[in-house]
Amino acid sequence: MAEWERIIECVPNFSEGREPETIRRLVESVESVEDALVLGTHVDPDHNRSVVTFVATPGAVVEACVRVVARAAELIDLRRHAGQHPRMGACDVFPFVPVRGVSVAECVELAHAAGGRIARELGIPVYFYESAALRPERRDLADVRRGGFEFLREQIATVPERAPDVGELRVHESAGACIVGVRPLLIAYNVNLKTNDLSVARLIAGRVRASSGGLLHLKALGFELAARGVVQVSMNLTSYEQTNLHHAFEAVRREAEALGVEVLGSEVVGLLPQAALDRSAEYFLKLENYSPDLVLENRIADALRRKERESE
Amino acid sequence: MAEWERIIECVPNFSEGREPETIRRLVESVESVEDALVLGTHVDPDHNRSVVTFVATPGAVVEACVRVVARAAELIDLRRHAGQHPRMGACDVFPFVPVRGVSVAECVELAHAAGGRIARELGIPVYFYESAALRPERRDLADVRRGGFEFLREQIATVPERAPDVGELRVHESAGACIVGVRPLLIAYNVNLKTNDLSVARLIAGRVRASSGGLLHLKALGFELAARGVVQVSMNLTSYEQTNLHHAFEAVRREAEALGVEVLGSEVVGLLPQAALDRSAEYFLKLENYSPDLVLENRIADALRRKERESE
Repeated sequence: MAEWERIIECVPNFSEGREPETIRRLVESVESVEDALVLGTHVDPDHNRSVVTFVATPGAVVEACVRVVARAAELIDLRRHAGQHPRMGACDVFPFVPVRGVSVAECVELAHAAGGRIARELGIPVYFYESAALRPERRDLADVRRGGFEFLREQIATVPERAPDVGELRVHESAGACIVGVRPLLIAYNVNLKTNDLSVARLIAGRVRASSGGLLHLKALGFELAARGVVQVSMNLTSYEQTNLHHAFEAVRREAEALGVEVLGSEVVGLLPQAALDRSAEYFLKLENYSPDLVLENRIADALRRKERESE
Repeated sequence: MAEWERIIECVPNFSEGREPETIRRLVESVESVEDALVLGTHVDPDHNRSVVTFVATPGAVVEACVRVVARAAELIDLRRHAGQHPRMGACDVFPFVPVRGVSVAECVELAHAAGGRIARELGIPVYFYESAALRPERRDLADVRRGGFEFLREQIATVPERAPDVGELRVHESAGACIVGVRPLLIAYNVNLKTNDLSVARLIAGRVRASSGGLLHLKALGFELAARGVVQVSMNLTSYEQTNLHHAFEAVRREAEALGVEVLGSEVVGLLPQAALDRSAEYFLKLENYSPDLVLENRIADALRRKERESE
């Protein structure tokens, strides 16, 4: 891990979810880049769509992005693609996510560099969204993608507000367009409550979420877990450095207690950074001297880096 | 870190704490072994003694041990060494500590292999202690070391119970003997209380420690932190897999609450394994699905290992 001090995660979405061989070749093209690693794939045959999750160092991420978008353009023909999910490209959406040691601003630069190469080298028009957006009306992905490939093909040359951010005023014949962006690392976190009363979960979700004056950077909804006969406050943390697992857990616990309801447990959906767990342990243990340097494995990684530098 | 799946920590004690050049050369001899990494040194001029903390893979640890004991024998002459601390060797004590992916039994095998080479190749008699002890009366380090170098030199050939476990019946002229052992990973953990009444800390320490029927694998003492005007329950956790930070914290907190005393905070002294923090976060968050696989950095390390294997 010595060279992996700075990490960007990418979660490109592809308009193919039925051909395992295509997914395999997409993964292969990412891993043909040194310092790019595929962590997993999610293939959705119903929507005929798939997601490849990979991480890369800042020096490798643009090349990995361009190679996999090129491979998708070779293998996926949107003119023959059917599926319910809105899409306008073979590689439809390409989010860059700063994970460790990388700022949003750096990710935006990298996303813009990748978008520039996709347009110039592959002839695919590119739209930038969310933090990488160049126009305020393109911050929201859904607004950019509205109408999908078929509408964009008709409008791109004639409707000025549909013009791409980089590239020519025509879609790539088979690969369409590509929407490249930067979004924050998101932790999906649920707290389960010992009641089957959905209104309790909805009430608590309404109290803890940012949009109603609760915790910053927290989205929350109430759901029923019918199989278990309990309800759940299902949350997204969009800035764990500011609102972490323990803030969310404690806020839900306090609201639940006030309503006389017990917290059964919690769960993380997907991945989370080590720091999110560390900071939760620090909070509950009231650790006065927490630092990543306390952790043996971090000290080993530091010592490895030092030894490698010295031997260079 | 790809090759660092299995880790042994070593904390050899050397009878030299005043010559920085000697310490530097001891460190250098450890790091001359690939897959051995020095994490830190602690030099104690008062006791004229120092500790080098290093980690190594199972394949590297014996070689690193023998090299640094050989270097100590070259550089340190016990006949000229003075210091209050009991000692009987240039490299006095050499503990092996299983840290990750290694059992105590494997560490004992490695410690015995290292001891055998120290005796045969360096002519230094070796005593095995704690989990590596071959005789029950040698489990306790203090019993093995009683009387130090000068007494051992007189008794080794004539007093049967002072005979080494491996090696000849005479001390190495300048380097004495070496005590090699295996001990558990120990976490030093303190909880600070908002009172200046030392009897409170002593009472709580007495209630939570293993020896008085408290938590298993927990040692505890009460201390005053005069500078801060508070008291502290100072603990050693000798098996964090069974009694972890959160067990210790919660036990102290409950006893303190019963006495009407507030917990101010806690601190870790030295290093701790990542798993100890993870398990604390899991406990307090009531995480139902914790697994190291949830953590992005672990997934990256796994993916790196896979990619390295595939490219071999």
